[in-house]
Amino acid sequence: MDHPRDAARGGQRARPGRSAAAGWVSSRPRAERAREVADVLRQQITSGRFPDGVLPDEYSLGQRLHASRNAVREALGLLRNEGLITRRRGVGTTVVLPKYGHGLDRLAGLAEALSGHGAVTNEIRAAEAVTELPAVIAERLGVPAAAGGVRLERLRWLDGLPLSLDSSYLTTDVGTRVLAGDLVGRDVFSLIEETSGHRLGRADVAVHAVTADPDTAALLRIEAGAAVFALERLTHLADGRPVDAESIRIRADRMALRTTLHRGVPPASG
Amino acid sequence: MDHPRDAARGGQRARPGRSAAAGWVSSRPRAERAREVADVLRQQITSGRFPDGVLPDEYSLGQRLHASRNAVREALGLLRNEGLITRRRGVGTTVVLPKYGHGLDRLAGLAEALSGHGAVTNEIRAAEAVTELPAVIAERLGVPAAAGGVRLERLRWLDGLPLSLDSSYLTTDVGTRVLAGDLVGRDVFSLIEETSGHRLGRADVAVHAVTADPDTAALLRIEAGAAVFALERLTHLADGRPVDAESIRIRADRMALRTTLHRGVPPASG
Repeated sequence: MDHPRDAARGGQRARPGRSAAAGWVSSRPRAERAREVADVLRQQITSGRFPDGVLPDEYSLGQRLHASRNAVREALGLLRNEGLITRRRGVGTTVVLPKYGHGLDRLAGLAEALSGHGAVTNEIRAAEAVTELPAVIAERLGVPAAAGGVRLERLRWLDGLPLSLDSSYLTTDVGTRVLAGDLVGRDVFSLIEETSGHRLGRADVAVHAVTADPDTAALLRIEAGAAVFALERLTHLADGRPVDAESIRIRADRMALRTTLHRGVPPASG
Repeated sequence: MDHPRDAARGGQRARPGRSAAAGWVSSRPRAERAREVADVLRQQITSGRFPDGVLPDEYSLGQRLHASRNAVREALGLLRNEGLITRRRGVGTTVVLPKYGHGLDRLAGLAEALSGHGAVTNEIRAAEAVTELPAVIAERLGVPAAAGGVRLERLRWLDGLPLSLDSSYLTTDVGTRVLAGDLVGRDVFSLIEETSGHRLGRADVAVHAVTADPDTAALLRIEAGAAVFALERLTHLADGRPVDAESIRIRADRMALRTTLHRGVPPASG
């Protein structure tokens, strides 16, 4: 429903080259302004601008963001649908969960990346030797299927809630030693380095955004259809040998991926 | 519905430390195996392993992936829900769209990143000077709100379908010159460098996964509720001055984000 103030401003679309008034109280359709307001608020929430987790009321947000109250309300609805905030009469708008940034700048395990934010603990769903690797996994790891390997699946918890579901196939030599390590408390990366005596080198990563299937949703305790990151990560030892083929699902309401990109040539790959 | 072969194998869960049989014909719940099969197929589809866009039939896929036909069928259902494949009786399973990789290794515009894959064209939705910046945007750009700026919004098309919706605020000096450039055919990054005479330096990027609101969905021609990437990107000139604050929505069925991560220290930031 359009508020009369909104309606009075509606109808006209900004045209290329035309100088326009400021910000989000403008002649643009409300859905567009709401999207922009949601983007700004998401950025502020994720960067910790509301340290007590309470957002100002709609009127104050509107003032602060130069937006109409209706656009603010619609933006808050979008962020509620993302699972980022809750809205309750008498309580106001509060941030559900801090959203952590996981760096895409360097290769780090989750516990490493979140050190200082809280302890990551792992619920082990699978940790076993397999006598034969699925053919496509063997191919990615550069070993024959008959070489076998180690399958790990861990649900990773932070602050009492699931954060990600990590499924890995490791090569037999590296994986067998990792199986003997503290899989509940440690990152696999540090276990690999510690037990193999080799440093890790590079990892090839592909990030997908998908909606959670019912099974994944139940494990991660989110609603089916919620957005999650699906990462493919193939990690190599410093000598270039691939040892860890992972598939990771990350709750997108709890984590953003961050990186700093540089113009010019990419760093030499290992 | 469980196929009898599946049921006969069901009931037992793999336990830590226990050596298990190979791959995806196993005692694990079918939803888990389907998820793994879907991950492998997504990886293969995205990396161009089915160049004619046609997937083998369920039986052949099962053979190839060591998976039961029911797990394969369920996996294909997941990928269909992601918009990656279609399934039609008599035609089989086909890839809907090639999924492009956008490098998160270095700072590049979309057209640059996709050069060789096809021509990106831009539908200009806004290209205008604004007399006052929204306060939070001004803060990100490190200028007073009263300095104004330039607002750009472009829907970016590749192969006759929308790929992303890019909304930017540029500083006045840089933005005014960009407004005079070929916004239909060019990346904003190359226009900034060309018209300002300055090289770009670094960009701070945060990647979120969200579900598309109805307005975004209509623009990107996807279903509301489909997963999309929402990127925040703040781009600086080589001298460190921020000039371009962007909010980008990318169709996640058409694009994966790729990077190579290295263990050890991150590259020095500019």
